[in-house]
Amino acid sequence: MSLDREEPNYFGAGPALLPTSVLQQAAKDLINYDNIGIGAGEISHRSKAGTSIIDQTKNSIKELLNVPDTHEVFFLQGGGTTGFSSIVANLSAAYIKKHQKIGTPYYVIDGTWSKKSFEEAERLGFNPKVIVNSKEIDGKFGTIPSVDKWNIPKNLDDISFIYYCDNETVNGVEFREFPFDKFPNVEIVADMSSNFLSKPVDVSKYGLIFAGAQKNVGVSGVSIYIIKKSLLQQASADELKKLGQHVVPIAFDYPTVVNNNSAYNTIPTFTVHIVNLVLKNLIEKGGLKAQEAENIEKSNLLYSILDKYPTVFNMPVEKSARSRMNIVFTIKDGSLDNEFIKEAENAKLSGLKGHRSVGGMRASLYNAVTLKSTKLLCEFVEDFAKKHQ
Amino acid sequence: MSLDREEPNYFGAGPALLPTSVLQQAAKDLINYDNIGIGAGEISHRSKAGTSIIDQTKNSIKELLNVPDTHEVFFLQGGGTTGFSSIVANLSAAYIKKHQKIGTPYYVIDGTWSKKSFEEAERLGFNPKVIVNSKEIDGKFGTIPSVDKWNIPKNLDDISFIYYCDNETVNGVEFREFPFDKFPNVEIVADMSSNFLSKPVDVSKYGLIFAGAQKNVGVSGVSIYIIKKSLLQQASADELKKLGQHVVPIAFDYPTVVNNNSAYNTIPTFTVHIVNLVLKNLIEKGGLKAQEAENIEKSNLLYSILDKYPTVFNMPVEKSARSRMNIVFTIKDGSLDNEFIKEAENAKLSGLKGHRSVGGMRASLYNAVTLKSTKLLCEFVEDFAKKHQ
Repeated sequence: MSLDREEPNYFGAGPALLPTSVLQQAAKDLINYDNIGIGAGEISHRSKAGTSIIDQTKNSIKELLNVPDTHEVFFLQGGGTTGFSSIVANLSAAYIKKHQKIGTPYYVIDGTWSKKSFEEAERLGFNPKVIVNSKEIDGKFGTIPSVDKWNIPKNLDDISFIYYCDNETVNGVEFREFPFDKFPNVEIVADMSSNFLSKPVDVSKYGLIFAGAQKNVGVSGVSIYIIKKSLLQQASADELKKLGQHVVPIAFDYPTVVNNNSAYNTIPTFTVHIVNLVLKNLIEKGGLKAQEAENIEKSNLLYSILDKYPTVFNMPVEKSARSRMNIVFTIKDGSLDNEFIKEAENAKLSGLKGHRSVGGMRASLYNAVTLKSTKLLCEFVEDFAKKHQ
Repeated sequence: MSLDREEPNYFGAGPALLPTSVLQQAAKDLINYDNIGIGAGEISHRSKAGTSIIDQTKNSIKELLNVPDTHEVFFLQGGGTTGFSSIVANLSAAYIKKHQKIGTPYYVIDGTWSKKSFEEAERLGFNPKVIVNSKEIDGKFGTIPSVDKWNIPKNLDDISFIYYCDNETVNGVEFREFPFDKFPNVEIVADMSSNFLSKPVDVSKYGLIFAGAQKNVGVSGVSIYIIKKSLLQQASADELKKLGQHVVPIAFDYPTVVNNNSAYNTIPTFTVHIVNLVLKNLIEKGGLKAQEAENIEKSNLLYSILDKYPTVFNMPVEKSARSRMNIVFTIKDGSLDNEFIKEAENAKLSGLKGHRSVGGMRASLYNAVTLKSTKLLCEFVEDFAKKHQ
């Protein structure tokens, strides 16, 4: 039975491509992990081998991101959507514990996913507020407005946390800098699902960073959380009920999860192991600085080709806010969309359709997308542009 | 790279053994699924291939269990623990929608897992009640008390649902019959995590059946739900908040999940695909009647050997309540526990340690454990008994 494949040129936005060598090792480990006679999906999450997979994965994240001792790494099932619910619940409970009153969560809405996260906080009854909504500024989530345009509340002490999405997968916008230096005492929460481990990050600035695995670091089914340890001090379920606050389901109660080394409930061990293998591969490749340099090179290549043909392509995102992970563009003559996709597939370039909510095209250049694939895409884009300019 | 392994004799309680042939196919599909050039973990859950994996898996469950048109199948991330939280929330919201008042959930506590489920309902503020707690009857969760010993409430209309665990993995007790014929109009919820698809079940009798995949049907990370469609009519989040009721996180809101064919949030496609392959294999092997016959044969073999040496082994579970999946026993001379485990491992029989909360031994004879493995275990147990009787 062959485990080979032709190297794919796949630009899907996630679940996304993974390195073939990682998948081959994972495939082998699915049958017989570390010569123990059974596969990584069959072992108990509380066995020595299971615990070792969790610990190895945690340690690789700590190593890659230089996670300080003030912070802890843990894993949860699910992706962004489960995170939206559990984050607002846990961080609100941490605020109540510390301040003995209910705080207000503030959201930077810079695209589809941060908007969904805000809506979930509303739905669960946390009365969140919007600190800025970039669509109200440019009509299309194509910008990241500077802090002077934000509705900053007078009393920063009432803020339970400020939430933002560091890279908006659907809209193709990404923060270039940490924008919260004006709020030194406010807990900052970042959804880094689609740019996690694509670049170095100063973890110490964050209350919480979270990321679904299925972009840069694995398959869907698990999320990585990095939390400031002080935020694990939370009001109890009984205290929250008395205050009429939503109580988080036990499997998503961060203190419980951390106290049980991410195995309070049955962790998806094989899924975590894929992350484990991706991270080892990333460390071997030179870590985050090397990866960031490659990601800059790849995205610059593609943006420069797209910019070269302004009569053919429309670039909806402001230059300063362009994502290195998700390059979105539309073809000015919308009737050419199908031709673009079809010809790309003939050239073995796939996964280029934009998100169904915005249309157009999107090329995701995650860590596993090679420079070679990117160059093939650039050549195709240039050929297409020359034909239609 | 070899995908072979010596057939394991593994009796772990879950995550559990899977058929080697299924894992080999899954390993191949992790690299290149259905010749599309990328693996099943890399495709979008909304692509044609991704949707097909979800649909195939749903259809196999419908086929194996003859799921009637009144019921729907869906998938959620997580296992039993996430189920405990979402079930009480969704079924309470369904009761409120139908009766325009808050109902009371009733729990049959027949072991560790149903107890945890009850505790989570309490923690979330649903004020559940106990209809029977078998530990209060025999002091050890080793029995299933007959219905005449239950605390049945006078007004059955107030019951939002009755919850029970059909097979208690830790304690080794299993219901032989559906015990709720006295409650024809009450919604019955069954946790079948550890005996799902081990035998035919009359789905029409249940409001909800759920099962984590990681025992009989897959690896950890996904759960299967079969719900009566009428229970998808639920009070809205706003209505629930007005009543001071817990609102379920959106990723676990059953109507939302069903309306989006289990892909409202990113479903763990590769994990679902493993279930898909296990089910196809089960259908090929002859379906649930054949599987049940094999499971009866395996468990009878082991129980009969254990019963044959009453001076060596203690059987904590009443005969009529014995599980066919999880055979629990202790060695009367507790000082022999380590010797038993060590000698078993020398004989390449592993995963036999009892749950940490109860100690002793536990041999799990899930679908993937072969008759051959079971016979090897029986021989070992008999040799051990003869040496120590």
